[in-house]
Amino acid sequence: MSYQPPIKDILFNLTALSQWPVVSGLPEYSEIDLSDATTALETLGRFCTSTLQPLGADGDATGAQLKDGVVVMPDGYHDAYEAFVDMGWQSLAHSPDHGGMGLPRAVGAAATEILNASDMSFGLCPLLTDGAIEALDITGSDAQKARYLPKLITGEWSGTMNLTEPQAGSDLGRVRTKAVPQDGGSFRLSGTKIFITYGDHEMSQNIIHLVLARTPGAPDGPKGLSLFVVPKFLVDDDGGLGARNNVNCISIEHKLGVRASPTAVLEYDGATGFLVGQENRGLDHMFVMMTAARFAVGVQGVGLADRAYQQALAQAQERVQSRPVDGSSTDAVPIIQHPDVHRMLMHMRALVEGGRALVAATAGWLDLARRGPEDIRGKADEMSEFLVPLVKGYCTEQAVNVASLAVQVHGGMGFIEETGIARLYRDARILPIYEGTTAIQANDLLGRKVLRNGGDVARRFAEMIAETEDELRRAGDTATAVADRLQAARAEFDASLAFLLDAAPDDPNTAYAGSVPFLMLTGALAVGWQLARALLAADAARAQGVDPDFMTRKIATAAFYAHHILPDCAGQRARITAGADSLLSAAL
Amino acid sequence: MSYQPPIKDILFNLTALSQWPVVSGLPEYSEIDLSDATTALETLGRFCTSTLQPLGADGDATGAQLKDGVVVMPDGYHDAYEAFVDMGWQSLAHSPDHGGMGLPRAVGAAATEILNASDMSFGLCPLLTDGAIEALDITGSDAQKARYLPKLITGEWSGTMNLTEPQAGSDLGRVRTKAVPQDGGSFRLSGTKIFITYGDHEMSQNIIHLVLARTPGAPDGPKGLSLFVVPKFLVDDDGGLGARNNVNCISIEHKLGVRASPTAVLEYDGATGFLVGQENRGLDHMFVMMTAARFAVGVQGVGLADRAYQQALAQAQERVQSRPVDGSSTDAVPIIQHPDVHRMLMHMRALVEGGRALVAATAGWLDLARRGPEDIRGKADEMSEFLVPLVKGYCTEQAVNVASLAVQVHGGMGFIEETGIARLYRDARILPIYEGTTAIQANDLLGRKVLRNGGDVARRFAEMIAETEDELRRAGDTATAVADRLQAARAEFDASLAFLLDAAPDDPNTAYAGSVPFLMLTGALAVGWQLARALLAADAARAQGVDPDFMTRKIATAAFYAHHILPDCAGQRARITAGADSLLSAAL
Repeated sequence: MSYQPPIKDILFNLTALSQWPVVSGLPEYSEIDLSDATTALETLGRFCTSTLQPLGADGDATGAQLKDGVVVMPDGYHDAYEAFVDMGWQSLAHSPDHGGMGLPRAVGAAATEILNASDMSFGLCPLLTDGAIEALDITGSDAQKARYLPKLITGEWSGTMNLTEPQAGSDLGRVRTKAVPQDGGSFRLSGTKIFITYGDHEMSQNIIHLVLARTPGAPDGPKGLSLFVVPKFLVDDDGGLGARNNVNCISIEHKLGVRASPTAVLEYDGATGFLVGQENRGLDHMFVMMTAARFAVGVQGVGLADRAYQQALAQAQERVQSRPVDGSSTDAVPIIQHPDVHRMLMHMRALVEGGRALVAATAGWLDLARRGPEDIRGKADEMSEFLVPLVKGYCTEQAVNVASLAVQVHGGMGFIEETGIARLYRDARILPIYEGTTAIQANDLLGRKVLRNGGDVARRFAEMIAETEDELRRAGDTATAVADRLQAARAEFDASLAFLLDAAPDDPNTAYAGSVPFLMLTGALAVGWQLARALLAADAARAQGVDPDFMTRKIATAAFYAHHILPDCAGQRARITAGADSLLSAAL
Repeated sequence: MSYQPPIKDILFNLTALSQWPVVSGLPEYSEIDLSDATTALETLGRFCTSTLQPLGADGDATGAQLKDGVVVMPDGYHDAYEAFVDMGWQSLAHSPDHGGMGLPRAVGAAATEILNASDMSFGLCPLLTDGAIEALDITGSDAQKARYLPKLITGEWSGTMNLTEPQAGSDLGRVRTKAVPQDGGSFRLSGTKIFITYGDHEMSQNIIHLVLARTPGAPDGPKGLSLFVVPKFLVDDDGGLGARNNVNCISIEHKLGVRASPTAVLEYDGATGFLVGQENRGLDHMFVMMTAARFAVGVQGVGLADRAYQQALAQAQERVQSRPVDGSSTDAVPIIQHPDVHRMLMHMRALVEGGRALVAATAGWLDLARRGPEDIRGKADEMSEFLVPLVKGYCTEQAVNVASLAVQVHGGMGFIEETGIARLYRDARILPIYEGTTAIQANDLLGRKVLRNGGDVARRFAEMIAETEDELRRAGDTATAVADRLQAARAEFDASLAFLLDAAPDDPNTAYAGSVPFLMLTGALAVGWQLARALLAADAARAQGVDPDFMTRKIATAAFYAHHILPDCAGQRARITAGADSLLSAAL
């Protein structure tokens, strides 16, 4: 079976969930309409299914390889990347000021989803380039933007994110890479960076590394880090490629999954770099890229989960095994007719569509935060900042679960590599780790996005959900039952929030003992909320006779999520509010 | 870090949870005492850590291979198997009547755990041989026992279980392999069996296949299957090896995990086989082996989870990263000091020790069901039959979760194959699939073990838990808090049980829509119950000054499980009692 890009669901979310009426009215998007987005995504979808999807199996088997100091991509990746650049896909959601198509963030997220569902190893390269573009666009000087953005936006050059060192993973304060000023205003960078996705390869003509390093005399810890742009090939003033810089790939990793993507160890040996933004503000600047990348990794999770779901669905429709328990057939039936297989598939679908709904909503807030009317930017920024760790943390954890369920639906065949579903299970496992583990997302959520503002944003989040509940209660029985579940989950959230706000000042260990359960509870609630909004939109559309089959399925998905996934919020709340003692008192 | 067999915990469970006072008083075990079990397990543990554990990494990388029709094992496996046989480990829990050591089932389970924690690919071979021994011992003729058991029990010969065919996985009624009677009372078997673990190899001198096949004129479906013993080499009347039988390995699978173990496609081309037990009763007879194998696979889950936990614990003690949230250090600390890492490790430990506790209790019932005083055999049999699908279903699902958490604790290093934890994650994924998927276990639990007896056994199970709660309430505050959690989880179980008993007769789809949630709820409760019994035993021992550190940790594990894992029973109950409508009405 072949992956089908979920264009219809994406467009539904775009108009129903991502604040399209406001976003599409922004000056930046005045020349864009829904048909532009549709055309772009459909065309991208055809490229992905015809060109990228066939690469995955062999790409995984061969893997990226380092030969004589050169990263060799598996067969087909070079050509696919060239076609990707020729078609201009890298530019989709970037500013027309530097050559981008300028489509809204939600459309960009949809493109990321489709790319990564088709081949996550490939998708990682544009994903990192997107982040580098965003970081330079926001924090770079005009000269830096002019020098680097046009060719990053075409995709002729790719971007990377260089944070991790052997002793500095989650703890970036321990970064040791040095940046020493030299004549002419540039710096010489020396140090070793690890886990650099697409840290070296020859698909793009140049690689623009964004690197955290420490200048002489800088303070210890995270406040002594500065951000540098270090091109693989130095760039002349006229934009042409100059000398090869002193940054080299000294090895690539042998990984559980996404094996076609090179994960490099890079050695900076006096490489020439250029300060981006202010000295010692590097981590703040890098957060632009990190936020973009975290959001995008959550989107990867949705894409991978959808791919796995679609494959499991096809298997369940095809595989004939056992008579139905209700005696409706004396012959064996396709396993999709067995209640538990149906349950697994619905569980997967609810998480996939739910994750996609949360992505669409978050993308809308991200756009409004950056480009919206002045009076709502602040609130939009707070809300998007609150939601991004949920997109990253919740959607990636659930991607692992969905991939695992997809293996399960395949039974014994799922364990055989040739079936292809085991590969998705392997690929998925990096999602809750890279760009900040789930615990790091949870710390971000609890520390920066909740405690730092005294819970104001979290309460506003809960209030908006309560408003949706009110709307649901005016929309019939199915919607009212969903409102009941949403209200119950929100009550678990409110109780957890109150507990954490109370505990954190004097007993941070107790608060942070519940950080990941709080992220998972909040993520489950946020997704349930967005699916409830989708239910309302679908209900209204169906009442007007619009695509009744699709709308009925959308309503069913929201109801399933409410009855099968939201109830787990009770368990998370118990862990948060009553679990710390039994945890913290236990010696390991 | 190197895996340490959990001998102390096993011995604690043996005496505290596995009905040791009754079991050790049985005539079969009159000459066994605890020191025999201790010595055996300690010696086995040394063999496993010194000989088996080092095989895994290369064994995985090389994999079993089929070369010129011969299954070639990775380096070291032949020698290790020879040493295994020489030391007599296969015989540990088998009857002295045929040369076994005759240790109780709980000790046998402990050996299975240690073997599989050390190398699951290796452990699968004796695991299947154990099952073949048990099936022949119970259903074979005296002549068959005399012919096959002695060399299976030494391990000189190994055993396999041949059920699956391409069209017959969970649905064994679709088995097509034919068995045609021939002169002299034997049968000629023809057909293709797939997914045959250790279906061919040369570590053992002979392979004794137990095969489901259909005789001419047999009814369609599962009631037309007969069980046959088909040796790779025919066995002379004097026990010597005769002609090579017509069963051949035509390929082996390329798998996600347990790659050193050969998973064979076997072609029976007029192979000579011998009927075991009664014609057309093959599935009933095979259930003996299936029950043994299902129990053992649950034990594998515990072993693999412990291995993963131990590796994650060592990593968390070593890896230094970030300052503690409580400000107790201005330097970065080992990550085990961060509350969420502590939480992940405790979650893993609770599932590992909890699974092991359930295994010990179930092993006790299994022994009593077969060898106990006449007046309790029936009840013991019912209880063990009720618990085996929980051991298989719950412990294997949790093994996947534990392995995934172990990867997570490793961060980015967890995704690198050389770290070794990704291999455990890959290996684990087969556990909830083979020997009956989780859905098959759930059908067995709900259909055969609950509905068929009108819920009587399930109610007795709940009554025993209530008795444990009463004991807990007399044992202090920590124990009382555990009793509260246990009682709440039991209430969710009771409500679910009542719902399922009510729904099943007229609406089986609604009942079976909740089958897996019911298995997971019941498994969580059963494990919580056994850990609560362990808490009581530990509390009593500590009061007498016995090993206070160990006992304190045991109590802490039980408390953590009660506060962090039992609360999820509420979510499962909601899925069971309120989730069917939203599932069954949703079109996929």
